[in-house]
Amino acid sequence: MTIDTTLDLVLERMVDVPPELVWMAWTQPEHVKKWFTPAPWTTIECEIDLRPGGLFRTVMSSPEGEKHPNFGCYLDIVPNRRLVWTDALEAGFRPSRHTAHLGFRFTAAILLEPHGAGTKYVAHVMHSDKEYRDKHETMGFFDGWGTATDQLMAHARTLRV
Amino acid sequence: MTIDTTLDLVLERMVDVPPELVWMAWTQPEHVKKWFTPAPWTTIECEIDLRPGGLFRTVMSSPEGEKHPNFGCYLDIVPNRRLVWTDALEAGFRPSRHTAHLGFRFTAAILLEPHGAGTKYVAHVMHSDKEYRDKHETMGFFDGWGTATDQLMAHARTLRV
Repeated sequence: MTIDTTLDLVLERMVDVPPELVWMAWTQPEHVKKWFTPAPWTTIECEIDLRPGGLFRTVMSSPEGEKHPNFGCYLDIVPNRRLVWTDALEAGFRPSRHTAHLGFRFTAAILLEPHGAGTKYVAHVMHSDKEYRDKHETMGFFDGWGTATDQLMAHARTLRV
Repeated sequence: MTIDTTLDLVLERMVDVPPELVWMAWTQPEHVKKWFTPAPWTTIECEIDLRPGGLFRTVMSSPEGEKHPNFGCYLDIVPNRRLVWTDALEAGFRPSRHTAHLGFRFTAAILLEPHGAGTKYVAHVMHSDKEYRDKHETMGFFDGWGTATDQLMAHARTLRV
């Protein structure tokens, strides 16, 4: 994948967790629910149909019980290496009928490369326009995805293949 | 793929052309340019990067030279059987920055099944909402796609694998 710095946001980390455990944490609902949403928000539902065209659905909840449902469609899946989905489509590749909560659509690619005993972890988020990339950054992309990534790795460290 | 009759438009034909030739006519730019646009409109440019995430770009021209560019992204490719793309995304799975000329986005699946010496041909077009499905039908979907399909088969009959 080519990164376009005017349209994309990229979070990159070297982590001491092997790709197989990061993959488990991203692709199994019981694990996703443990880390996906920066606390004190929680992920109360997660549905994963892990194939191109398959559904990726989550429901986030605020401490007060306000619920945010999210619907995405998996596009490209290479076990332990690459996971790509978008909220521009829903299950079966159909254009999404759901409201774009952020005010725009995005495609996310999670890229994992073995790095020593750990992983070079890249979250690459693509937007259609610079305006949306900048808006996403201003909304706190690096803080939100950064905190979620800390939670992801803390949880993945507790897993065994 | 599941057909949702409230959201989808489906054109089905039994044709006397084998799947391999229909596939050629759909996936090679020099062939697409011969049949893709109902006459007297023509397809003056076509670019195909035949892989999931690859670009499918055409430019249609009216007899007066009015040009309509179209940008899509391939999603699912099974040679001689299934070709799926959407204009909700552009190359690299990025959400599309291009105007939705029809006023909505769609995903199209071309499904080919051997049927005797010919093919059971299905064009399955998915919309996000019933409103858009109905609008697309009113805009002349069956006439436009029907004429293009006649042109497709007439051209494919001239091809050899």
